[in-house]
Amino acid sequence: MASQSTSQGYSYAEPEIQQFVKDFSKLILNEALIPQTDPNTKVLNFRQPLDLQKFLDLEIYEEPVPREKLLELGRKVIDGSIVPGHPRFLNQLYTGVDPYSLFGAWLTEVLNCNVHTYEVSPAMVTLENYIFKKISSLIGYPDGEGIFCPGSSFSNLIAIHLARFRHNPTLKEKGLFSCEPMVILKSEDAHYSVEKGANFLGFGTESVVKVKSDDRGRVIPEDLEIKIQQCKQKKCAPIMFMASCGTTVLGSFDDLESVADICKRYNVWMHVDAAWGGGVMLSDKLKYLTKGIERSDSVAWNIHKMSGAGIQCSAFVVKEKGFLEKCNAYRAEYLFQPDKIYDTSFDIGDRTIQCGRKNDVLKLWLMWKGRGDKAMGARIEKAFDLAAYLTEKLKSTEGFRLVLPEFQCTNISFWYIPPRLRGKQETTEWWEEVGKVAPAIKGRMMLKGSIMISYQPLSSKGLVNFFRVIIANPVCERSDMDFIVDEIINLGQDL
Amino acid sequence: MASQSTSQGYSYAEPEIQQFVKDFSKLILNEALIPQTDPNTKVLNFRQPLDLQKFLDLEIYEEPVPREKLLELGRKVIDGSIVPGHPRFLNQLYTGVDPYSLFGAWLTEVLNCNVHTYEVSPAMVTLENYIFKKISSLIGYPDGEGIFCPGSSFSNLIAIHLARFRHNPTLKEKGLFSCEPMVILKSEDAHYSVEKGANFLGFGTESVVKVKSDDRGRVIPEDLEIKIQQCKQKKCAPIMFMASCGTTVLGSFDDLESVADICKRYNVWMHVDAAWGGGVMLSDKLKYLTKGIERSDSVAWNIHKMSGAGIQCSAFVVKEKGFLEKCNAYRAEYLFQPDKIYDTSFDIGDRTIQCGRKNDVLKLWLMWKGRGDKAMGARIEKAFDLAAYLTEKLKSTEGFRLVLPEFQCTNISFWYIPPRLRGKQETTEWWEEVGKVAPAIKGRMMLKGSIMISYQPLSSKGLVNFFRVIIANPVCERSDMDFIVDEIINLGQDL
Ligand SMILES: Cc1ncc(COP(=O)(O)O)c(C=O)c1O
Ligand SMILES: Cc1ncc(COP(=O)(O)O)c(C=O)c1O
Repeated sequence: MASQSTSQGYSYAEPEIQQFVKDFSKLILNEALIPQTDPNTKVLNFRQPLDLQKFLDLEIYEEPVPREKLLELGRKVIDGSIVPGHPRFLNQLYTGVDPYSLFGAWLTEVLNCNVHTYEVSPAMVTLENYIFKKISSLIGYPDGEGIFCPGSSFSNLIAIHLARFRHNPTLKEKGLFSCEPMVILKSEDAHYSVEKGANFLGFGTESVVKVKSDDRGRVIPEDLEIKIQQCKQKKCAPIMFMASCGTTVLGSFDDLESVADICKRYNVWMHVDAAWGGGVMLSDKLKYLTKGIERSDSVAWNIHKMSGAGIQCSAFVVKEKGFLEKCNAYRAEYLFQPDKIYDTSFDIGDRTIQCGRKNDVLKLWLMWKGRGDKAMGARIEKAFDLAAYLTEKLKSTEGFRLVLPEFQCTNISFWYIPPRLRGKQETTEWWEEVGKVAPAIKGRMMLKGSIMISYQPLSSKGLVNFFRVIIANPVCERSDMDFIVDEIINLGQDL
Repeated sequence: MASQSTSQGYSYAEPEIQQFVKDFSKLILNEALIPQTDPNTKVLNFRQPLDLQKFLDLEIYEEPVPREKLLELGRKVIDGSIVPGHPRFLNQLYTGVDPYSLFGAWLTEVLNCNVHTYEVSPAMVTLENYIFKKISSLIGYPDGEGIFCPGSSFSNLIAIHLARFRHNPTLKEKGLFSCEPMVILKSEDAHYSVEKGANFLGFGTESVVKVKSDDRGRVIPEDLEIKIQQCKQKKCAPIMFMASCGTTVLGSFDDLESVADICKRYNVWMHVDAAWGGGVMLSDKLKYLTKGIERSDSVAWNIHKMSGAGIQCSAFVVKEKGFLEKCNAYRAEYLFQPDKIYDTSFDIGDRTIQCGRKNDVLKLWLMWKGRGDKAMGARIEKAFDLAAYLTEKLKSTEGFRLVLPEFQCTNISFWYIPPRLRGKQETTEWWEEVGKVAPAIKGRMMLKGSIMISYQPLSSKGLVNFFRVIIANPVCERSDMDFIVDEIINLGQDL
């Protein structure tokens, strides 16, 4: 029967498919996982886009390619990819996946469930409810609730959406046409997802008001108050302020107590973007950095950043239980049938605007179980210790200049001044020259495959391109920090 | 040194961690993958929410749980989960993950990359660009472009957002306050993501205008035209119509040619929600169902539904190249530096409003490569063949009544009328009784663990609860269809 032959190759009960699973697991272990943390391997094999296109053998054909060829293609993809778990990947706010989290992530792919109803995702709904109780208690929300989002940009949008709904619940039906304008406030150092989101959510980017930050990138509370008052004078309702715990570039933590006082005074939704710095809540030593976070209305935390849960694992938590559902519920009758055999308050899909939702909790729960609270905190502390070490090292090494006198999160920002530019007068032209150094060194690093470190200007503070090292990888040691410094000198001294 | 001991257990180079990876791979293969397609296993072990909470041993402690215990917990999660790849899971529009796709999904978890810049995701950006060329050519867009979204609900929102931007590009900065109201049109059978999205995007749910559908759930083009004219008369701009290829409940395909004529006439953005039915484009025999799709402005397609790519794999495709970026770009200076060593048009992150984005392409590309175009089409055809078989079987079996005379997508909708209700006058009370049958049988199925089939009412058509069987699993055979019918009789004849 024709239909029987077309079912071949789909069931894991077929010995050939079992063999394939074994083969690719082995390949992944030996060729991607084990080499990942070896400092003697390259962190990338750079290829220009058109070369990579050829290398990857992209074309899909009418006929299948055999399984051996598929394995070969997997190998090419590994070779064509950057290695975030490499101890010399310090480029972005994430790293390699924790082995315990990987177990959860692989199992997630196999269970292939959509987390909207208890009916089809009983275990995942149960884990999510538990994890959000746990995170709520870390934050200090007595009865918080949450949902995993596809990224903290999305979480920040959900916060704006909730703030709007609290401000005026009729907007759910009526929309923004002909309503009094509203604004969203954030510091000038806070993440750009707010502007993108303001466009998406119908506010327009001009509805975002930027509050000044101090020389270390922390919001200036007095300016927040002034900006709120100015909005009110212009008959623009200030609905939300987004505070930051760990800004993207400088790693700054806003003073949440002062922010909370002001938000309370003016009845403004206080959202905390702890996408990057949220991990400090896990450490008894470091959690002082988020002091006052329990007074906020909502928090976003990317647990796939400093804590090593696989990408993505973005928790959004709200203080008021039930509020997410009030704001988003639509109760589609084909999914949220009331006449089920269990308590349908466990059908959590209406907490968000997604319908199907990937399961992001299992990889987190297994990791957290397997590490325990203490080690989860120790991981963060270790990253901070290394940040301190690197900061001291940069201070005492000729040619390096720190952007900030102290590090705040594990972002370490600095310029490298090559010998030819040292001891000169620091004119605008001189800074322009300095601004060309980081991109040039970065290019050389990439071509050599030795390190990945990001650089960027910071126009709001008038700063030219500087390096930003991010420490998030628990396998990093002091020797890796030493290597960074040596390698930058090595690659940049002739510039 | 304290910092050294805290790094233990994180590197895959450690023999114990390698052993752990081997152990959990084996566990997953033997206890989740292999049993998945065995009709002699249960499709679920139902537990009430509070029982499951206890069973899963949720609590996270200060101290780690040992690795053996973690494996044990993984086993419990498997036991507490539904099995979408089981041949008797016919509940939702997805199934188990294709083995080739699983390879890509597992590798994705290991590569752990964020698809925003070529710098950190060179291979994934390259694959995405290729795949969207491939999908564009399937659709018939000469120069289309796309992005993977976290679900088709999100894709549908992006479509609304693009339509709004085309209608009035100044809204990107200015927002909706005090602009002329706009409406979004969809058929009454189309997906509810539009309403949720209208709330989120600032339109409000009342800005969604529902166009009538015919008795098979297909939009009535004449009513679309009337509704557009009515909007214009009320000075509401109709910015978008969302057509459907495969509606969620009835599986209806709208007549895209007629829709395209009308959308063109009134300059309305035509978005096609092919989340469910998009797979028919892969089959030469079935692609007639999407005739006219090339005339649309954008398409959403969940390749994790009928085609078995792992959840999530939601493609959003737009006809006009560059338009996504025009609408969404913000060019964050810390991420999209212009002075890189490669052509930065490969930094695709500004196509969307997300910042970090999970890689959803690798699992699709490897699957499509490994199957080839023909088999990708054959898989869909087989599901349609089985739908035809089941439809005939239901027609000829006493006690079953089809909701529609013919199936459209692989949704088969029907009532089971138990003996006590047969041959009676079909009054409102009688229908009320019939409406209680599906939930009761479903409850018994779940408790027994024998099948999962969804049921729902369809209020827009005045229909009481009916079963909706979904066929998407390539391991399903006629015997499974026979089993469904027998089991429903078995569980429902005394009702
Ligand atoms: C401080 C901060 N907030 C929010 C985000 C956005 O998170 P995501 O990339 O998950 O959308 C980032 C991204 O790096 C960030 O650094
Ligand atoms: C027709 C249709 N469109 C859109 C969606 C939404 O897709 P997602 O669940 O990926 O958000 C669904 C979900 O089942 C659907 O059936």
